[in-house]
Amino acid sequence: MQQHIDKEQLLGMEQRQRAVLINSLGGFKSVCMIGTMNAKGKSNLACFSSLVHLGANPALLAFVMRPATVERHTLENILATNVFTVNHLNEGIYKQAHQTSASYPADVSEFEATGLTEEYKENFLAPFVKQSRVKFGMRLREKIDLTINNTSMIIGEIEQIYFPEDCLQEDGFVDLEKAGTLTCSGLDAYHSTKKLARLSHAKPYQALTIINQEEEKNNQN
Amino acid sequence: MQQHIDKEQLLGMEQRQRAVLINSLGGFKSVCMIGTMNAKGKSNLACFSSLVHLGANPALLAFVMRPATVERHTLENILATNVFTVNHLNEGIYKQAHQTSASYPADVSEFEATGLTEEYKENFLAPFVKQSRVKFGMRLREKIDLTINNTSMIIGEIEQIYFPEDCLQEDGFVDLEKAGTLTCSGLDAYHSTKKLARLSHAKPYQALTIINQEEEKNNQN
Repeated sequence: MQQHIDKEQLLGMEQRQRAVLINSLGGFKSVCMIGTMNAKGKSNLACFSSLVHLGANPALLAFVMRPATVERHTLENILATNVFTVNHLNEGIYKQAHQTSASYPADVSEFEATGLTEEYKENFLAPFVKQSRVKFGMRLREKIDLTINNTSMIIGEIEQIYFPEDCLQEDGFVDLEKAGTLTCSGLDAYHSTKKLARLSHAKPYQALTIINQEEEKNNQN
Repeated sequence: MQQHIDKEQLLGMEQRQRAVLINSLGGFKSVCMIGTMNAKGKSNLACFSSLVHLGANPALLAFVMRPATVERHTLENILATNVFTVNHLNEGIYKQAHQTSASYPADVSEFEATGLTEEYKENFLAPFVKQSRVKFGMRLREKIDLTINNTSMIIGEIEQIYFPEDCLQEDGFVDLEKAGTLTCSGLDAYHSTKKLARLSHAKPYQALTIINQEEEKNNQN
């Protein structure tokens, strides 16, 4: 049976329950840790589930920041230094990633608090997470304040990319499943994935085919 | 071995390959079909992988729209009618969902072209996808033009929600995995999920616990 909830029922729900419900409806989300450095050189790490692709040329991604205390350090640091890192989660570190969302005091780095390791690469100021397998450094391009609910959208451009060598396919596809990247749902559920298929570029009135770059690559070798 | 790609190498890549690479880095994405109706009563359906949660009170989600031909109908229709539906994918319909991204002529509905079924509920003007299990109707609240790359962000407020009854947990969590909702990666890869855990709200210097609402519910019965 289908359950139906209308706007009036939604408004009548207890606040926390509504937050959990609405967060669930957004589907499986791109979850990552964002690494930053403050003006005094102290690192910060925070978990976000609102990463969204904006475009490939220039290479832009954005994430949404609530007007909340926990996330303030991330925003302050990005505005102070103009850079941040995005680090994918995997099964070995998702609990630590979740733990970074706790409200630690400003003088405590979530790296130290959770046991994740800071990693500095190519003179990039912001810290990467050593245990993360897919990660990239971004430079702040724009902060857009969404007055509708006092959130902000932070837009960055990719400058440095790192991922496991054996995960790159011929056509540029990075096999995130092979890299062990996780997804999340709701506010607190973490999931691994199982690929069904890559599908060919859709054209009107033509059947789709399955893309298998991995197999093609092996056949060529 | 880790592979490293810097900004200069990225700019030197062939355009399509770069697009595939950058789209992969965004992680596992929330993929959905957006259903709309034009001013003449013709339905439209299009696949998007940029759904993002903005807030629960009011219940806002946004998606990003490229300045592209295929997606123009969706935007035109939303601006004409102020409403749209968001329909999650499942294993039975992901190929049809992908096929909606083909450039059909304006007088062809992607519902007819792909064999998906239009469903109208609670006098909501925009069409739902009958075969989708988790779906909701939204009203346009704001269109924000991102001048940085000529994309637009469409912000909507949830008005009508539908999901399978046995997927709702006590605390408001909708078990999307039980509902069979899929995620996607890159431009064309579709994945099912396997839950690792729901984790408790993180507090400094306290160990996380596993949330098992399903079990608690069964124990109460």
